[in-house]
Amino acid sequence: MLTLYHHPFSPSSRFVRLILSEYGANFDDKLVNPWERPHELLLLNPAGTVPVLVENDGPPICGAQTILEYLDETRGYAMADRRLMPDHPDARAETRRLVDWALGKFDMEVIGHLVRERIYKQTMPRSIGGGEPDSGALRVARANIHHHMKYFGYLVASRRWLGGDRLTFADFALAAELSCADYLGEVPWAEEENVKHWYARVKSRPSMRPLLGEKVLGLPAATTYADLDF
Amino acid sequence: MLTLYHHPFSPSSRFVRLILSEYGANFDDKLVNPWERPHELLLLNPAGTVPVLVENDGPPICGAQTILEYLDETRGYAMADRRLMPDHPDARAETRRLVDWALGKFDMEVIGHLVRERIYKQTMPRSIGGGEPDSGALRVARANIHHHMKYFGYLVASRRWLGGDRLTFADFALAAELSCADYLGEVPWAEEENVKHWYARVKSRPSMRPLLGEKVLGLPAATTYADLDF
Repeated sequence: MLTLYHHPFSPSSRFVRLILSEYGANFDDKLVNPWERPHELLLLNPAGTVPVLVENDGPPICGAQTILEYLDETRGYAMADRRLMPDHPDARAETRRLVDWALGKFDMEVIGHLVRERIYKQTMPRSIGGGEPDSGALRVARANIHHHMKYFGYLVASRRWLGGDRLTFADFALAAELSCADYLGEVPWAEEENVKHWYARVKSRPSMRPLLGEKVLGLPAATTYADLDF
Repeated sequence: MLTLYHHPFSPSSRFVRLILSEYGANFDDKLVNPWERPHELLLLNPAGTVPVLVENDGPPICGAQTILEYLDETRGYAMADRRLMPDHPDARAETRRLVDWALGKFDMEVIGHLVRERIYKQTMPRSIGGGEPDSGALRVARANIHHHMKYFGYLVASRRWLGGDRLTFADFALAAELSCADYLGEVPWAEEENVKHWYARVKSRPSMRPLLGEKVLGLPAATTYADLDF
């Protein structure tokens, strides 16, 4: 049995929920507010971050990219042509580069700011930084998102999926990040039609459904969030 | 033939030089100042970061963790018991968690600040942020390093190597990061004897030698930097 420690609006937690679902792996889930640094989480992951995956009595698997490799190593071979990691080392490197771009660079420069300022801070006590969003951080995120969208647009204009001809972990990493910004109405879809069409294809997958049902108390989703024809 | 685009004091570039050497892979190297965003680098890696590895006419392999997986996939099986990635998925996850801690968290909270403020800024033009170190950033790094050292000390007190019984990529990731701080005399070795003894063992490996000969113009290495009995 798998147990996932996660937060519903942590983009890298969302990524892991998507790939667990794509790999047909059922899991129990435990919701965690990582900023509370709960003892149970720190025992599993001294870095104090989510996602963390635990399989039966095994050791904790910490962090989205480590979980990706673990799932692929333990279940990838059984997935045949639905495997989300290509076979050739060059194509694997391209998948990993794009996963790292989405969960690392894009998260750090854009999505992380939006989620922290507009979602996490609503629930965080003021004593540890909760309260009103920092307008400077939001301004940076909103300026940076255009450059990223342009790059994603360039990629999907020449490829069937983000990483190449086939669906890979890279598509779910970017979809997980974008879905958080989309909830907040922060994605400039009109600027990049190709990204919009690519996202519509990922969004229609059954693995996305649980995410599209998530809600932040007191902050309704943008009207297009759960709409498959946004 | 392999070509590595790197900077001599970029910790994740150092990590890749170490593992290329451990895997007996010869490479040509091209020195890059990533802050200059040279056109040749951006064509290979739109993220504008080093390290980037190119094998023959293959596509660029971007980023230390992607390069680690690529090297292990293409050369790991031939390494037998000198392979730096364990066989069991649980142990592989632990190796990846620690590599990510060293090159991600430790770099972001400590070593990245030290290298940028004290080394990169010496060569960067003032127009893009070069000049005097930011004392606030140095203060943060110097406060954070104690917590990390304590955690590394806890790990190596109960394990032969950082990730467990055998030498893995994790040891080289941490050694690469620490070596940059050690050049600057910024590692509080006296606080954690176990980390010091572990580092002495890694430092004595032939793969470390080229790193210990590196110099920053006008900034001599701390006296212990190249000393194997520091």
